[in-house]
Amino acid sequence: MKPIEFYFDFASPYAYLASEKIEAIATKYGRTVAYKPTLLGVVFKAAGTMPLVDYPLKGDYSRHDFARSARYAGVPLKFPEKFPIPTVNAARALLWLQGTGSAKAVSFVHKAFRTYFVDNRDINDPAVLADIADDLGIDKKAMLAAIQDAAIKDKLKAAVEESVKRGVFGAPFIFVDGEPFWGNDRLPQIERWLERGPF
Amino acid sequence: MKPIEFYFDFASPYAYLASEKIEAIATKYGRTVAYKPTLLGVVFKAAGTMPLVDYPLKGDYSRHDFARSARYAGVPLKFPEKFPIPTVNAARALLWLQGTGSAKAVSFVHKAFRTYFVDNRDINDPAVLADIADDLGIDKKAMLAAIQDAAIKDKLKAAVEESVKRGVFGAPFIFVDGEPFWGNDRLPQIERWLERGPF
Repeated sequence: MKPIEFYFDFASPYAYLASEKIEAIATKYGRTVAYKPTLLGVVFKAAGTMPLVDYPLKGDYSRHDFARSARYAGVPLKFPEKFPIPTVNAARALLWLQGTGSAKAVSFVHKAFRTYFVDNRDINDPAVLADIADDLGIDKKAMLAAIQDAAIKDKLKAAVEESVKRGVFGAPFIFVDGEPFWGNDRLPQIERWLERGPF
Repeated sequence: MKPIEFYFDFASPYAYLASEKIEAIATKYGRTVAYKPTLLGVVFKAAGTMPLVDYPLKGDYSRHDFARSARYAGVPLKFPEKFPIPTVNAARALLWLQGTGSAKAVSFVHKAFRTYFVDNRDINDPAVLADIADDLGIDKKAMLAAIQDAAIKDKLKAAVEESVKRGVFGAPFIFVDGEPFWGNDRLPQIERWLERGPF
């Protein structure tokens, strides 16, 4: 069975909410999750859009909806004071970790999301990333070196380009057997697909 | 109990899908639905957005998602060749019908939506509106006169302005006890609100 491909940016609140549910859904249907970081700044440019909170009317609603959707999902959320933030360092750290074959890559995804969306800390700050590494028993020196490494930088660039080529225009953007589902709202359709196949 | 306020444009596929479900949900919780036509052309301008299908990447996905979401909901949908269309005449016809106190206003909403999204007919065409009126036993001469009537035109203008003032930036846009819910995707949150109150 193909893994569920989960494209996201660490600064997306709806991606955070979905990340707290997707593994349980995957496991229920004998699947795994492949976390694929991208950068919404680049993605939004390709799609001719902006961050939700920058739109008139939609911006105010969105802040209200982030919080309500978190309560609906039973996921803790304390909206960060700095929002949105660039997440290039967090994304590079994840790509590096995945490249080493570390079993801690998935824990890093969840810890980084919660550090931003619950603890209100800027996860693009190398000092904050170092704290996350410490907590998870990851070699922080190697991680901090990696986020400055040219090969990792190129890897993220390629990952972002690949996401746009696949049609990713927001987050979370989830592929199941190649079928695209955009948004935390699509988890029920994803479950139906996993349970009963294409519809 | 306050009616559920359902803001929509007759050219919105997601509003069509939600319109096929909202009354059953309302009835289950002892509520009624107040259908409130608006015009997405004006609304999108106020929100700094465009029709979904006009965006790169998002446009292709949306067409795919309209059809899949209809299948998921078990609602018939044959995507119209002309899309989107202006819906000013259909909106005026509904406002006129509501103003006469006709019990057929709700039937008109459903019939007009299906005529566009199932039968592929342009519901802004007065001849098509006349056919709908005939089918429902509505006085078609009075309806066709009403859509040219200055008072009805003003009524629609005021309705659209009111929708923007309330923060409507897309469709369906649904208020329950004053709480705003945007999108067909929010029906589960609406059900929870109706069942257990604010959350």
